Amino acid sequence: MNGMLDFYFDFSSPYAYFAAMDVDKFAERYDIAVHWHPILLGAIFKKTGAQPLLSMPLKQDYALHDLERTARLKKLPFIMPPKMPFMSLTACRAFYWLKHQDRFLAQTFAKNVFKAGYQMGLDISDNGVVTDLVVSLDFKTNEIQTGIKDQGIKDTLWTAVEDAQEAGVFGSPYFIFNNEPFWGYDKMPLLGEWITKKGW
Amino acid sequence: MNGMLDFYFDFSSPYAYFAAMDVDKFAERYDIAVHWHPILLGAIFKKTGAQPLLSMPLKQDYALHDLERTARLKKLPFIMPPKMPFMSLTACRAFYWLKHQDRFLAQTFAKNVFKAGYQMGLDISDNGVVTDLVVSLDFKTNEIQTGIKDQGIKDTLWTAVEDAQEAGVFGSPYFIFNNEPFWGYDKMPLLGEWITKKGW
Repeated sequence: MNGMLDFYFDFSSPYAYFAAMDVDKFAERYDIAVHWHPILLGAIFKKTGAQPLLSMPLKQDYALHDLERTARLKKLPFIMPPKMPFMSLTACRAFYWLKHQDRFLAQTFAKNVFKAGYQMGLDISDNGVVTDLVVSLDFKTNEIQTGIKDQGIKDTLWTAVEDAQEAGVFGSPYFIFNNEPFWGYDKMPLLGEWITKKGW
Repeated sequence: MNGMLDFYFDFSSPYAYFAAMDVDKFAERYDIAVHWHPILLGAIFKKTGAQPLLSMPLKQDYALHDLERTARLKKLPFIMPPKMPFMSLTACRAFYWLKHQDRFLAQTFAKNVFKAGYQMGLDISDNGVVTDLVVSLDFKTNEIQTGIKDQGIKDTLWTAVEDAQEAGVFGSPYFIFNNEPFWGYDKMPLLGEWITKKGW
Protein backbone atom coordinates (compact mmCIF):
# COMPACT_ATOMS: atom_id res chain seq x y z
CA MET A 1 0.00 0.00 0.00
CA ASN A 2 1.49 3.33 -1.14
CA GLY A 3 -0.52 5.53 1.18
CA MET A 4 -3.84 7.20 1.74
CA LEU A 5 -5.64 9.66 -0.51
CA ASP A 6 -8.24 12.12 0.77
CA PHE A 7 -10.87 12.75 -1.90
CA TYR A 8 -12.96 15.87 -1.22
CA PHE A 9 -15.95 16.69 -3.40
CA ASP A 10 -19.33 18.36 -3.62
CA PHE A 11 -22.14 16.29 -5.14
CA SER A 12 -23.11 19.38 -7.16
CA SER A 13 -19.76 19.33 -8.99
CA PRO A 14 -19.90 17.61 -12.40
CA TYR A 15 -16.11 17.15 -12.50
CA ALA A 16 -16.39 15.35 -9.15
CA TYR A 17 -18.78 12.92 -10.88
CA PHE A 18 -16.01 11.95 -13.33
CA ALA A 19 -13.49 11.70 -10.50
CA ALA A 20 -15.86 9.48 -8.49
CA MET A 21 -16.31 7.16 -11.49
CA ASP A 22 -12.51 6.88 -11.90
CA VAL A 23 -11.22 6.83 -8.36
CA ASP A 24 -11.65 3.10 -7.56
CA LYS A 25 -9.58 2.05 -10.58
CA PHE A 26 -7.12 4.83 -9.79
CA ALA A 27 -6.73 3.49 -6.23
CA GLU A 28 -6.15 -0.03 -7.54
CA ARG A 29 -3.63 1.10 -10.14
CA TYR A 30 -1.55 3.10 -7.65
CA ASP A 31 -2.18 0.76 -4.69
CA ILE A 32 -3.60 3.40 -2.38
CA ALA A 33 -6.57 3.67 -0.03
CA VAL A 34 -9.12 6.43 -0.66
CA HIS A 35 -11.13 8.27 1.97
CA TRP A 36 -14.19 9.98 0.55
CA HIS A 37 -15.22 13.37 1.97
CA PRO A 38 -18.41 14.88 0.55
CA ILE A 39 -18.55 18.54 1.56
CA LEU A 40 -20.65 21.64 0.96
CA LEU A 41 -18.51 23.94 -1.14
CA GLY A 42 -21.11 26.70 -0.91
CA ALA A 43 -20.17 27.13 2.74
CA ILE A 44 -16.51 27.55 1.78
CA PHE A 45 -17.30 29.80 -1.20
CA LYS A 46 -19.11 32.17 1.17
CA LYS A 47 -15.84 32.69 3.03
CA THR A 48 -13.56 32.87 -0.02
CA GLY A 49 -15.84 34.97 -2.25
CA ALA A 50 -15.53 32.43 -5.07
CA GLN A 51 -18.39 31.67 -7.43
CA PRO A 52 -19.59 28.26 -8.60
CA LEU A 53 -18.06 27.36 -11.99
CA LEU A 54 -21.41 27.14 -13.69
CA SER A 55 -22.58 30.56 -12.50
CA MET A 56 -19.84 32.43 -14.37
CA PRO A 57 -20.41 33.80 -17.87
CA LEU A 58 -18.16 32.47 -20.67
CA LYS A 59 -16.71 29.79 -18.37
CA GLN A 60 -20.13 28.17 -18.24
CA ASP A 61 -20.33 27.50 -22.00
CA TYR A 62 -16.76 26.24 -21.98
CA ALA A 63 -17.35 23.99 -18.97
CA LEU A 64 -20.44 22.39 -20.51
CA HIS A 65 -18.53 21.72 -23.70
CA ASP A 66 -15.56 20.32 -21.76
CA LEU A 67 -17.79 18.09 -19.61
CA GLU A 68 -19.45 16.58 -22.68
CA ARG A 69 -16.06 16.09 -24.32
CA THR A 70 -14.75 14.41 -21.16
CA ALA A 71 -17.77 12.09 -21.04
CA ARG A 72 -17.21 11.01 -24.65
CA LEU A 73 -13.51 10.36 -24.00
CA LYS A 74 -14.24 8.34 -20.85
CA LYS A 75 -17.22 6.60 -22.48
CA LEU A 76 -19.43 7.62 -19.55
CA PRO A 77 -23.02 8.83 -19.77
CA PHE A 78 -23.38 12.48 -18.82
CA ILE A 79 -26.36 14.75 -18.39
CA MET A 80 -26.62 17.91 -16.40
CA PRO A 81 -28.83 17.56 -13.28
CA PRO A 82 -32.06 19.58 -13.57
CA LYS A 83 -31.14 22.30 -11.06
CA MET A 84 -27.60 23.75 -11.10
CA PRO A 85 -26.03 24.75 -8.80
CA PHE A 86 -27.82 22.93 -5.98
CA MET A 87 -27.30 22.20 -2.29
CA SER A 88 -26.36 18.60 -1.57
CA LEU A 89 -27.06 18.88 2.17
CA THR A 90 -29.29 15.79 2.43
CA ALA A 91 -27.00 13.58 0.35
CA CYS A 92 -24.02 14.65 2.48
CA ARG A 93 -25.84 13.90 5.73
CA ALA A 94 -26.97 10.53 4.39
CA PHE A 95 -23.37 9.75 3.42
CA TYR A 96 -22.04 10.43 6.92
CA TRP A 97 -24.93 8.52 8.50
CA LEU A 98 -24.07 5.51 6.34
CA LYS A 99 -20.35 5.94 7.00
CA HIS A 100 -20.97 5.58 10.72
CA GLN A 101 -22.14 2.07 9.90
CA ASP A 102 -19.95 1.04 6.95
CA ARG A 103 -17.35 3.17 5.15
CA PHE A 104 -17.55 1.18 1.92
CA LEU A 105 -21.34 1.22 1.85
CA ALA A 106 -21.14 5.01 2.12
CA GLN A 107 -18.82 5.08 -0.90
CA THR A 108 -21.24 2.92 -2.89
CA PHE A 109 -24.00 5.34 -1.91
CA ALA A 110 -21.90 8.33 -3.06
CA LYS A 111 -21.31 6.71 -6.44
CA ASN A 112 -25.04 6.00 -6.72
CA VAL A 113 -25.82 9.66 -5.93
CA PHE A 114 -23.50 10.77 -8.73
CA LYS A 115 -25.03 8.26 -11.15
CA ALA A 116 -28.56 9.32 -10.21
CA GLY A 117 -27.68 12.96 -10.86
CA TYR A 118 -25.34 12.85 -13.83
CA GLN A 119 -26.48 9.68 -15.62
CA MET A 120 -30.22 9.63 -14.89
CA GLY A 121 -30.84 13.36 -14.44
CA LEU A 122 -32.58 12.92 -11.09
CA ASP A 123 -32.72 15.81 -8.62
CA ILE A 124 -30.17 14.64 -6.06
CA SER A 125 -30.86 17.65 -3.84
CA ASP A 126 -34.31 16.12 -3.23
CA ASN A 127 -34.95 14.30 0.04
CA GLY A 128 -37.09 11.65 -1.69
CA VAL A 129 -34.41 10.81 -4.28
CA VAL A 130 -31.72 10.55 -1.60
CA THR A 131 -33.98 8.38 0.57
CA ASP A 132 -34.66 6.02 -2.34
CA LEU A 133 -30.92 5.62 -2.90
CA VAL A 134 -30.39 4.68 0.75
CA VAL A 135 -33.39 2.34 0.79
CA SER A 136 -31.92 0.57 -2.27
CA LEU A 137 -28.99 -0.38 0.00
CA ASP A 138 -31.36 -2.30 2.30
CA PHE A 139 -32.24 0.36 4.84
CA LYS A 140 -35.70 1.40 5.92
CA THR A 141 -37.17 4.82 5.06
CA ASN A 142 -37.70 5.74 8.71
CA GLU A 143 -34.11 4.78 9.62
CA ILE A 144 -32.59 7.17 7.09
CA GLN A 145 -35.17 9.88 7.82
CA THR A 146 -34.26 9.74 11.50
CA GLY A 147 -30.56 9.51 10.63
CA ILE A 148 -30.35 12.68 8.55
CA LYS A 149 -32.15 14.67 11.25
CA ASP A 150 -29.80 13.46 13.97
CA GLN A 151 -27.80 16.27 15.56
CA GLY A 152 -24.68 14.10 15.70
CA ILE A 153 -24.84 13.57 11.92
CA LYS A 154 -25.41 17.28 11.27
CA ASP A 155 -22.35 18.02 13.42
CA THR A 156 -20.29 15.37 11.63
CA LEU A 157 -21.02 17.08 8.30
CA TRP A 158 -20.07 20.54 9.61
CA THR A 159 -16.89 19.16 11.10
CA ALA A 160 -16.09 17.60 7.72
CA VAL A 161 -16.61 20.96 5.96
CA GLU A 162 -14.49 22.79 8.55
CA ASP A 163 -11.74 20.17 8.40
CA ALA A 164 -11.73 20.43 4.60
CA GLN A 165 -11.42 24.19 4.71
CA GLU A 166 -8.64 23.95 7.27
CA ALA A 167 -6.83 21.53 4.96
CA GLY A 168 -7.01 24.21 2.23
CA VAL A 169 -9.83 22.72 0.12
CA PHE A 170 -11.47 25.41 -2.05
CA GLY A 171 -12.79 23.49 -5.05
CA SER A 172 -14.13 20.13 -6.20
CA PRO A 173 -12.80 17.56 -6.76
CA TYR A 174 -9.82 18.15 -4.48
CA PHE A 175 -7.27 15.52 -3.54
CA ILE A 176 -4.71 15.47 -0.74
CA PHE A 177 -2.03 12.79 -0.71
CA ASN A 178 0.52 12.96 2.14
CA ASN A 179 -0.19 16.69 2.56
CA GLU A 180 0.23 17.30 -1.19
CA PRO A 181 -2.87 19.01 -2.69
CA PHE A 182 -4.24 18.48 -6.20
CA TRP A 183 -7.22 20.53 -7.33
CA GLY A 184 -9.41 19.43 -10.21
CA TYR A 185 -10.20 16.34 -12.24
CA ASP A 186 -7.52 17.34 -14.76
CA LYS A 187 -4.86 16.89 -12.07
CA MET A 188 -5.46 13.16 -11.59
CA PRO A 189 -2.65 12.16 -14.02
CA LEU A 190 -0.21 14.46 -12.16
CA LEU A 191 -1.39 13.00 -8.85
CA GLY A 192 -0.68 9.52 -10.22
CA GLU A 193 2.79 10.61 -11.30
CA TRP A 194 3.37 12.11 -7.83
CA ILE A 195 2.38 8.84 -6.12
CA THR A 196 4.60 6.77 -8.44
CA LYS A 197 7.65 9.03 -8.06
CA LYS A 198 6.98 9.63 -4.35
CA GLY A 199 7.04 13.35 -5.13
CA TRP A 200 9.75 15.47 -6.73
CA MET B 1 0.80 19.55 -41.18
CA ASN B 2 -2.13 18.63 -38.93
CA GLY B 3 -3.53 22.13 -38.61
CA MET B 4 -3.22 25.45 -36.85
CA LEU B 5 -3.32 26.16 -33.14
CA ASP B 6 -4.24 29.56 -31.71
CA PHE B 7 -2.35 30.16 -28.47
CA TYR B 8 -3.83 33.01 -26.38
CA PHE B 9 -2.07 34.23 -23.27
CA ASP B 10 -1.43 37.13 -20.92
CA PHE B 11 2.20 37.82 -20.04
CA SER B 12 1.09 38.19 -16.42
CA SER B 13 -0.05 34.55 -16.30
CA PRO B 14 2.55 32.19 -14.77
CA TYR B 15 0.89 29.13 -16.30
CA ALA B 16 1.23 30.81 -19.70
CA TYR B 17 4.99 30.95 -19.03
CA PHE B 18 5.08 27.15 -18.79
CA ALA B 19 2.91 26.82 -21.89
CA ALA B 20 5.18 29.21 -23.82
CA MET B 21 8.24 27.16 -22.85
CA ASP B 22 6.53 23.94 -24.05
CA VAL B 23 4.63 25.03 -27.13
CA ASP B 24 7.42 24.81 -29.75
CA LYS B 25 8.17 21.17 -28.88
CA PHE B 26 4.44 20.53 -28.70
CA ALA B 27 4.00 21.95 -32.22
CA GLU B 28 6.82 19.79 -33.53
CA ARG B 29 5.51 16.65 -31.87
CA TYR B 30 1.98 17.07 -33.24
CA ASP B 31 3.05 18.66 -36.53
CA ILE B 32 1.00 21.82 -36.17
CA ALA B 33 1.57 25.53 -36.68
CA VAL B 34 1.07 27.84 -33.69
CA HIS B 35 -0.18 31.42 -33.83
CA TRP B 36 0.71 33.40 -30.71
CA HIS B 37 -1.82 35.93 -29.38
CA PRO B 38 -0.75 37.95 -26.34
CA ILE B 39 -3.82 39.62 -24.87
CA LEU B 40 -4.83 41.70 -21.86
CA LEU B 41 -7.01 39.45 -19.73
CA GLY B 42 -7.79 42.34 -17.37
CA ALA B 43 -9.92 43.88 -20.11
CA ILE B 44 -11.87 40.63 -20.46
CA PHE B 45 -12.11 40.07 -16.67
CA LYS B 46 -13.78 43.49 -16.36
CA LYS B 47 -16.59 42.24 -18.58
CA THR B 48 -16.89 38.76 -17.06
CA GLY B 49 -16.49 39.73 -13.41
CA ALA B 50 -13.72 37.15 -12.95
CA GLN B 51 -10.74 37.74 -10.68
CA PRO B 52 -7.08 37.03 -11.39
CA LEU B 53 -6.05 33.62 -9.99
CA LEU B 54 -3.46 35.14 -7.70
CA SER B 55 -5.85 37.66 -6.15
CA MET B 56 -8.10 34.98 -4.67
CA PRO B 57 -7.59 33.74 -1.12
CA LEU B 58 -6.81 30.01 -0.65
CA LYS B 59 -6.37 29.54 -4.40
CA GLN B 60 -3.32 31.78 -4.25
CA ASP B 61 -1.39 29.54 -1.84
CA TYR B 62 -2.36 26.49 -3.85
CA ALA B 63 -1.38 28.10 -7.15
CA LEU B 64 2.06 29.13 -5.87
CA HIS B 65 2.65 25.61 -4.63
CA ASP B 66 1.43 24.11 -7.92
CA LEU B 67 3.59 26.47 -9.99
CA GLU B 68 6.73 25.53 -8.07
CA ARG B 69 5.84 21.83 -8.34
CA THR B 70 5.30 22.25 -12.10
CA ALA B 71 8.66 24.00 -12.48
CA ARG B 72 10.46 21.16 -10.68
CA LEU B 73 8.71 18.55 -12.84
CA LYS B 74 9.53 20.40 -16.07
CA LYS B 75 13.05 21.24 -14.85
CA LEU B 76 12.46 24.92 -15.61
CA PRO B 77 13.52 27.87 -13.47
CA PHE B 78 10.60 29.68 -11.89
CA ILE B 79 10.32 32.80 -9.81
CA MET B 80 7.37 35.06 -9.32
CA PRO B 81 7.73 38.46 -11.02
CA PRO B 82 8.04 41.31 -8.48
CA LYS B 83 4.57 42.81 -9.02
CA MET B 84 1.59 40.47 -9.38
CA PRO B 85 -0.83 40.89 -11.06
CA PHE B 86 0.50 43.44 -13.53
CA MET B 87 -0.52 45.02 -16.82
CA SER B 88 1.46 43.77 -19.79
CA LEU B 89 0.33 46.56 -22.11
CA THR B 90 3.81 47.58 -23.33
CA ALA B 91 4.98 44.00 -23.92
CA CYS B 92 1.79 43.28 -25.89
CA ARG B 93 2.22 46.37 -28.05
CA ALA B 94 5.88 45.55 -28.67
CA PHE B 95 4.85 42.01 -29.68
CA TYR B 96 2.37 43.25 -32.31
CA TRP B 97 4.84 45.87 -33.55
CA LEU B 98 7.43 43.10 -34.07
CA LYS B 99 4.85 40.79 -35.58
CA HIS B 100 4.15 43.33 -38.32
CA GLN B 101 7.75 42.79 -39.36
CA ASP B 102 8.39 39.12 -38.60
CA ARG B 103 5.98 36.67 -36.95
CA PHE B 104 8.74 34.38 -35.70
CA LEU B 105 10.80 37.23 -34.28
CA ALA B 106 7.71 38.28 -32.32
CA GLN B 107 7.47 34.74 -30.90
CA THR B 108 11.11 34.83 -29.85
CA PHE B 109 10.44 38.16 -28.18
CA ALA B 110 7.42 36.71 -26.34
CA LYS B 111 9.53 33.82 -25.03
CA ASN B 112 12.19 36.31 -23.92
CA VAL B 113 9.55 38.36 -22.08
CA PHE B 114 8.42 35.24 -20.21
CA LYS B 115 12.02 34.30 -19.36
CA ALA B 116 12.80 37.84 -18.18
CA GLY B 117 9.78 37.78 -15.88
CA TYR B 118 9.64 34.21 -14.61
CA GLN B 119 13.29 33.16 -14.77
CA MET B 120 15.08 36.44 -14.01
CA GLY B 121 12.44 38.19 -11.93
CA LEU B 122 12.52 41.37 -14.01
CA ASP B 123 9.53 43.70 -14.04
CA ILE B 124 8.14 42.95 -17.51
CA SER B 125 5.44 45.59 -17.10
CA ASP B 126 8.25 48.15 -17.25
CA ASN B 127 8.85 50.07 -20.47
CA GLY B 128 12.64 49.97 -20.02
CA VAL B 129 12.74 46.19 -19.57
CA VAL B 130 10.53 45.64 -22.61
CA THR B 131 12.65 48.05 -24.67
CA ASP B 132 15.85 46.21 -23.71
CA LEU B 133 14.31 42.92 -24.85
CA VAL B 134 13.45 44.41 -28.24
CA VAL B 135 16.86 46.08 -28.59
CA SER B 136 18.49 42.68 -27.94
CA LEU B 137 16.82 41.52 -31.17
CA ASP B 138 18.75 44.17 -33.13
CA PHE B 139 16.31 47.06 -33.10
CA LYS B 140 17.02 50.62 -32.04
CA THR B 141 15.52 52.14 -28.90
CA ASN B 142 13.83 54.95 -30.82
CA GLU B 143 12.29 52.50 -33.33
CA ILE B 144 10.54 50.49 -30.62
CA GLN B 145 9.60 53.62 -28.63
CA THR B 146 7.92 55.06 -31.72
CA GLY B 147 6.40 51.66 -32.54
CA ILE B 148 4.61 51.13 -29.25
CA LYS B 149 3.09 54.63 -29.39
CA ASP B 150 1.78 54.10 -32.92
CA GLN B 151 -2.02 54.29 -33.11
CA GLY B 152 -2.09 51.40 -35.60
CA ILE B 153 -0.26 49.17 -33.10
CA LYS B 154 -2.57 50.22 -30.26
CA ASP B 155 -5.55 49.37 -32.47
CA THR B 156 -4.01 46.03 -33.44
CA LEU B 157 -3.75 45.07 -29.76
CA TRP B 158 -7.33 46.06 -29.00
CA THR B 159 -8.57 44.14 -32.02
CA ALA B 160 -6.62 41.12 -30.78
CA VAL B 161 -8.27 41.39 -27.34
CA GLU B 162 -11.73 41.79 -28.89
CA ASP B 163 -11.17 38.89 -31.28
CA ALA B 164 -10.04 36.71 -28.37
CA GLN B 165 -13.10 37.57 -26.34
CA GLU B 166 -15.33 36.89 -29.33
CA ALA B 167 -13.64 33.49 -29.72
CA GLY B 168 -14.62 32.75 -26.10
CA VAL B 169 -11.23 33.26 -24.44
CA PHE B 170 -11.64 33.95 -20.71
CA GLY B 171 -8.39 32.68 -19.19
CA SER B 172 -4.70 32.12 -19.85
CA PRO B 173 -3.26 30.08 -21.41
CA TYR B 174 -6.14 29.31 -23.77
CA PHE B 175 -5.84 27.22 -26.91
CA ILE B 176 -8.18 26.88 -29.88
CA PHE B 177 -7.60 24.13 -32.43
CA ASN B 178 -10.11 23.91 -35.30
CA ASN B 179 -12.71 25.71 -33.16
CA GLU B 180 -12.09 23.35 -30.22
CA PRO B 181 -11.20 25.29 -27.04
CA PHE B 182 -8.80 24.13 -24.31
CA TRP B 183 -8.34 26.29 -21.22
CA GLY B 184 -5.29 25.96 -19.01
CA TYR B 185 -1.79 24.55 -19.07
CA ASP B 186 -3.12 21.28 -17.59
CA LYS B 187 -5.17 20.72 -20.75
CA MET B 188 -2.17 20.45 -23.09
CA PRO B 189 -2.07 16.62 -22.89
CA LEU B 190 -5.80 16.47 -23.75
CA LEU B 191 -5.23 18.92 -26.61
CA GLY B 192 -2.47 16.63 -27.89
CA GLU B 193 -4.82 13.64 -27.70
CA TRP B 194 -7.48 15.65 -29.55
CA ILE B 195 -5.06 16.52 -32.37
CA THR B 196 -3.88 12.91 -32.69
CA LYS B 197 -7.37 11.41 -32.71
CA LYS B 198 -8.80 14.28 -34.82
CA GLY B 199 -11.38 14.78 -32.07
CA TRP B 200 -13.92 12.33 -30.65
